[in-house]
Parts: sequence; structure tokens; C-alpha cells
Amino acid sequence: GGVIGATVVSNKQVVFRDYVTGFPKESDLLITSNTVDLRIPAGSTTVLLKNLYLSCDPYMRNRMRKPDPSRPATAQSFLPGKPISGFGVSKVMDSGHPDYKEGDLLWGAVGWEEYSVITPIPNLHFKIHHTDFPLSYYTGLLGMPGMTAYAGFYEICSPKKGETVFVSAASGAVGQLVGQFAKLMGCYVVGSAGTKDKVDLLKNKLGFDDAFNYKEENDLNAALKRCFPEGIDIYFENVGGRMMDAVILNMRPHGRIAACGMISQYNLQIPEGVYNLSLITYKRIRIQGFNAIDYFHKYSEFSEFVVPYIRESKITYVEDVADGLESAPAALVGLFHGKNVGKQLVVVSREKK
Amino acid sequence: GGVIGATVVSNKQVVFRDYVTGFPKESDLLITSNTVDLRIPAGSTTVLLKNLYLSCDPYMRNRMRKPDPSRPATAQSFLPGKPISGFGVSKVMDSGHPDYKEGDLLWGAVGWEEYSVITPIPNLHFKIHHTDFPLSYYTGLLGMPGMTAYAGFYEICSPKKGETVFVSAASGAVGQLVGQFAKLMGCYVVGSAGTKDKVDLLKNKLGFDDAFNYKEENDLNAALKRCFPEGIDIYFENVGGRMMDAVILNMRPHGRIAACGMISQYNLQIPEGVYNLSLITYKRIRIQGFNAIDYFHKYSEFSEFVVPYIRESKITYVEDVADGLESAPAALVGLFHGKNVGKQLVVVSREKK
Ligand SMILES: NC(=O)c1ccc[n+]([C@@H]2O[C@H](COP(=O)([O-])OP(=O)(O)OC[C@H]3O[C@@H](n4cnc5c(N)ncnc54)[C@H](OP(=O)(O)O)[C@@H]3O)[C@@H](O)[C@H]2O)c1
Ligand SMILES: NC(=O)c1ccc[n+]([C@@H]2O[C@H](COP(=O)([O-])OP(=O)(O)OC[C@H]3O[C@@H](n4cnc5c(N)ncnc54)[C@H](OP(=O)(O)O)[C@@H]3O)[C@@H](O)[C@H]2O)c1
Repeated sequence: GGVIGATVVSNKQVVFRDYVTGFPKESDLLITSNTVDLRIPAGSTTVLLKNLYLSCDPYMRNRMRKPDPSRPATAQSFLPGKPISGFGVSKVMDSGHPDYKEGDLLWGAVGWEEYSVITPIPNLHFKIHHTDFPLSYYTGLLGMPGMTAYAGFYEICSPKKGETVFVSAASGAVGQLVGQFAKLMGCYVVGSAGTKDKVDLLKNKLGFDDAFNYKEENDLNAALKRCFPEGIDIYFENVGGRMMDAVILNMRPHGRIAACGMISQYNLQIPEGVYNLSLITYKRIRIQGFNAIDYFHKYSEFSEFVVPYIRESKITYVEDVADGLESAPAALVGLFHGKNVGKQLVVVSREKK
Repeated sequence: GGVIGATVVSNKQVVFRDYVTGFPKESDLLITSNTVDLRIPAGSTTVLLKNLYLSCDPYMRNRMRKPDPSRPATAQSFLPGKPISGFGVSKVMDSGHPDYKEGDLLWGAVGWEEYSVITPIPNLHFKIHHTDFPLSYYTGLLGMPGMTAYAGFYEICSPKKGETVFVSAASGAVGQLVGQFAKLMGCYVVGSAGTKDKVDLLKNKLGFDDAFNYKEENDLNAALKRCFPEGIDIYFENVGGRMMDAVILNMRPHGRIAACGMISQYNLQIPEGVYNLSLITYKRIRIQGFNAIDYFHKYSEFSEFVVPYIRESKITYVEDVADGLESAPAALVGLFHGKNVGKQLVVVSREKK
């Protein structure tokens, strides 16, 4: 932001135009500008942040929905005319809060803007202690998607060495980690993704045993039978719809499905039907929905678990980096067309000062 | 059976005509006759049973399906031209097995016929020790459906006092018990059933807090909202299809669905779609399929649990009794049209001698 007054600067923002039906478009988000005072007023316990990286996450689509009292209040809808918010990585510029001081780095809930004034909330804002990694990792591997993969795989899937694991949207922010966690445990892991390049990434860089491009398979059931002749023990569900149907046909008895998300359904006004559910009785399948937020109190446990693996290069992470707040609308909307290769994030500012 | 030789008598049987598609018809089952020797040959360890009561169970529809290698071998298909089999209550006439002697009563897997020769299998055949109840209870309350309700409710639903419980096909063999178990635990319990008489039974005899006739509700979502203004913690799923969709809309966060069965789907060549599954992520819903057979090793635990409640009249049981093997096809087929009021069973012989 440019300097306006002594400590008042302009603050570029990504503003929500109006509620969305169907696929979100870039034009649903507007780049506007505001001003912000870089000094926290005396007596306030808020914190002024300079945002460095913003995370593009599929759940944000649900916040673009018009509030509907008949639906559960999952995440609050964005307010038309106001900046959207999400997870980000930020640096403290000024602080009235006893736990935060100028220069601290943190990740957590912030506005999509250059500067945010927040009231830190435990388990929604986390101080960053390890800076020997790219700071952007705190939008992905070391942030919310990392927690999602960790809780989803270890707490929801009840994995055992030697089991077969299928991951959809496997090259994405969450999926690439689930696959690597499953390999570390000694599972046989197959992923699906929407381009040949992503399939190559899964097999050659991310250590998946096998992978397929679901867009090139006209019979998903046959593709899964080919990859899992003995069936699937664990399905990490990122996609929903017809993929879930095909997976249910191929699940082994006592199989587990972690219902992490169903991105294929988020933009449909009438969702796809799932037809094979009666098999879950005979196969004793468990389907468990979960939300990473419920596990955020375990963030330091997760961090202690994963940091050594990153240091030893036993876990790797693929990011897709969009440059500048102006590119944020396209980056976010691109998730729903598979434009991202790996974790999609936006750089607001690379300067750490 | 009439006496033919010294110990050879005729043996009426219910024979499977051929594989079934769509709704089963009475004519898919034929009443024929055979002969059987009432003496077990020397050296054999088999047991000769006189069958007293036979259990009509919805899962038997799946055994009428043509074997399909692409589907899981859930229960083996019936053999065309051979008698069908199921669960029954029988009296031992002769035995070459060390654990069984003439006059013993047992329940377990038998043919649909007057006399069966079986090889007793642990956890598939159980000696009957309590005879101060109607013996027919061992087709229902004290048999497989009882174990289903017990394992399904206590092991799968994770129930807590004060929670709200919805049971579909609530007046049936399993449902009426689930509702009573839930009431004993201090839950708020609502059931659905297909006639006004069944709804009255639920409210006035079986102790449900509320009940509705799903055939008279053109908006199942609205019916559930009316009965559960604060939502459903536990759904005991006997029905599937559109009922599951309506329930998912009304589940509370962290709700549990015990996928006991989906009878509304068993006779459809193209199953109904379920459209609201993406809500299971946001609501953290768990759906767990299970099979009572996996819990049969806990039968004596169940029996010790439930027998005192029966003796103290704290649990009651509604049966629908068809008389004679000739009535068995209609009784079995009737399940899929809701003809049964309570547990459907067939009396083959009332004589205990
Ligand atoms: N439960 C939780 O707490 C939680 C937390 C984070 C994320 N999630 C969920 O986890 C899933 C993955 O999230 P992520 O952050 O890792 O996103 P991501 O995979 O990095 O990005 C989304 C990807 O989804 C795929 N996709 C988009 N539309 C699709 C469609 N119609 N059918 C199949 N695939 C489609 C695209 O990859 P392809 O090229 O492969 O199509 C796209 O790249 C989402 O469902 C998300 O909502 C849940
Ligand atoms: N997982 C296991 O181990 C296990 C064991 C036993 C039973 N089960 C399952 O549990 C469920 C209940 O079995 P049960 O033995 O207690 O049978 P039941 O309820 O005594 O008899 C079946 C009842 O289902 C209802 N029904 C039939 N068609 C229907 C439809 N299209 N839509 C809604 N309801 C329908 C009818 O009652 P209405 O008049 O109310 O329609 C009928 O009386 C079945 O799904 C069965 O397969 C599972």
C-alpha cells in the first residue's frame, strides 16, 4: 500500500460482489482499495497484520452461497460489498495484544487484503516458530490443508500398514499429503487427478504407487478395478458424486471413507445422485465426515510430527503460486476447474519487513 | 410330515423357482415335498431338526438375486430348484453331534421345510435355554433381529442419554426394538412406518415419543423438521433412498447413521439416488454399515442383557404370525409391501414334541 498519512496507507482488498449460484466467476470478486492506519489505537488489544500469503480453499465456495436457513450454518457466508476472508500467512506490524509483538509471523484467519486488523483467536491464529521452510507452506503443508490431511488420514481412516488407499483430487493441497502419509505408513496408494501432468506428478514426484486421469476414464468402476484388483480399504474422498459411487463398488469389507469434501458438487444447483449406498451395509463400510477445524487444538502435535519429515525430505510439497492480490480472483475460481497444480496460494507480499 | 417308512416321512419344502428381478412374487417360491429319514445314520455328526418357526427377513431378497461376480458375495444366492434357507427355531429329533441331543431346542440357520438335517456351526446355531417366553421370540426379539437391534444401537450408534433418535421401518422386527432400547437409554425417539395402525402401535404400545406415516407425508424433510425441531442425533436406517436424503438434511452435527438396511432399494433395478451427501462433511456425520452376523459371538451377552427386561415387561414385542409352510411365500413377499405388522414369522409346527 502507498503511504497516505503519517501511518495511514492504502489497503488493496478482494471484495465479494454478491452471492453466487453455479460456478463462481472472477467477476464475482472485485479488487478495490481502502485505507488502514498502521498503528493500533492505544488501549486496543487488536493486532495489525501485513498479509504475505493467502490460501485458496474450496470451502470458500460455500461461503459465497446465499445464507439459507434450511441449510446448516457451516461457515458464514461472505458479506456482499465486503472483503472475503480465509487462511493466510502474515507478519505483525503493530499489536495491542500481549501475546503478539511487531515482527511476529503467524498463520490463521485473515481478510483478503494487504493489511488486516484482527483479534487473535486461539486455535484460529497460530504463531509461526519454524522459518527454515518457505513461509508459504503455512497456507498448505503446515497450515489448514496439512491439518486436514493429518486428522483425516490418521484419525478418520484408521489406516493399517499394507492396506490399499485411494485418494481423489490427489495432487491438490490435501490429497498430495494424504498420499504421502499413507505411503509412510506402508499402504498401497493410488490417486486420481484431472490432467496427465498431475498424474505424472503423483507417480514421479509424490510417490504414489499408481494414478489415473479420471477425465480420460469413461468407466470409473473399471479404472478402480484395474488399480485395485483386490479392492479398496480406505478412500479419502475429496470429490463426491459419481466417483463415490464407483468407489463404493470397489470397497473391501470394513472399508473406511473419510468424507473430506465433495468438490464436484459445490457448484451444481442440483447435486448428482449417489446410487450404490445400499452396499455399505453388506460391506460394513464406514463413511465419516470431518472438519479440520475440530482438530486445530492438535496443531502443535501435527507440527512436531511433520516438521522432521520435511527436514529429512521424506515429505515434499507442490505449490501453485499466483502473484499479487490482483491475481487472487482467478486463482480461487481456478480451483473449480482444476487449474491449480498442487496447493493454490496467492502472494500478497514477499517482503517480510 | 406323514409317515412313509419306519422312520422315513414326507418333508414339505419351500423351493426357490428361479432368480428374481424386481419385486419378488409368491410364485417365485413353490411348495413341494420330499422325504427325510428321521434317524441320523450311525457315525454322522449331523443333527435332524423338526422346524417349528421360520423367520421372514428382508435380506433374503438379496439371496434371490442372480449371482453377479461384480457385486460382493454378501449372502450366497439361493439355488433354483432347491429349498430356500433362513433363520428358524427347531427341535432336535435325532443327533450324531456330541453337543446336541434329542429334545434340545435351538435357533439358527435352517432350510424352509418341515425337517432339516444340519451340521451345527458355532455362532450360527444357538441352544435355547430360556423357554419361559414364546419360542417364536427366537425368530425375532431373541434371535437375529434382536442381535441386529442390540449391536446396531449400542455398538454402532454411540447413543447418549437425551439424544434424539429416528428409526425408519420402526414397527418391524428390528425397528421396534431399537426404539425401545433408545427409550430405555433416555433418548427422544420417533419412528416412521407405512400405515396408520403401525403409527398407533409405535405411539401407544411401543413407547415411541412420536411417529409418522411416511406414505402420507409428501415432504419427508418437513415431517422430520416437525418431529425434530432441533435435529436428529441418531438415525437407525432401515429404508434408504429418499428417506436418507431427508434425514441428512435434518441431522445434527456429529450425528450417526447406523446403516442397518435399505429395504426401499432391494427390489429396484435402478436404485434411487441420494443427493445430500456433501452435507456429511460439514455436519461431521458418520454412516456405518454393519451386519448382525459379525456380533453373533456376543449372543449370550445380549441374552443376559435383554431377558431381564422381557421378564419385567420393560420390553415388549409385536409379532405377525403366518400359519403353515404354505403361507410362507406370501409372508416373505409381504415384507416388501409392508404387509407385516411387527416381526413376520411362519409357524411350521406348534407341537414341541
Ligand atoms: N473437511 C475439511 O476440513 C477440509 C479441509 C480442506 C479441504 N477440504 C476438501 O478437500 C478437497 C480438496 O481440497 P484442496 O484444498 O486439497 O483442493 P485442491 O485439491 O488443491 O484443489 C481442488 C482440486 O479439485 C479438483 N476438482 C475440481 N473440480 C472437480 C470435479 N468436478 N471433479 C473432480 N475433481 C475436481 C481439481 O483437481 P483435478 O485436476 O484433479 O480435477 C482441483 O485442482 C475439497 O473437497 C475440499 O473442500 C476439506
Ligand atoms: N444389517 C443387518 O445385519 C440386518 C439384520 C436384519 C435386518 N436388517 C435390515 O433392517 C431392515 C428392517 O428389517 P426387519 O427384519 O426389521 O423388517 P421389518 O421392518 O419387520 O419388515 C420390513 C418393513 O419394511 C418396510 N418397507 C418395505 N418396503 C419399504 C419401502 N419401499 N420404503 C419404506 N419402508 C418399506 C415395511 O414397513 P412399512 O409399513 O413401515 O413400510 C415392512 O413391514 C431391513 O432393511 C433389513 O434388510 C439388517
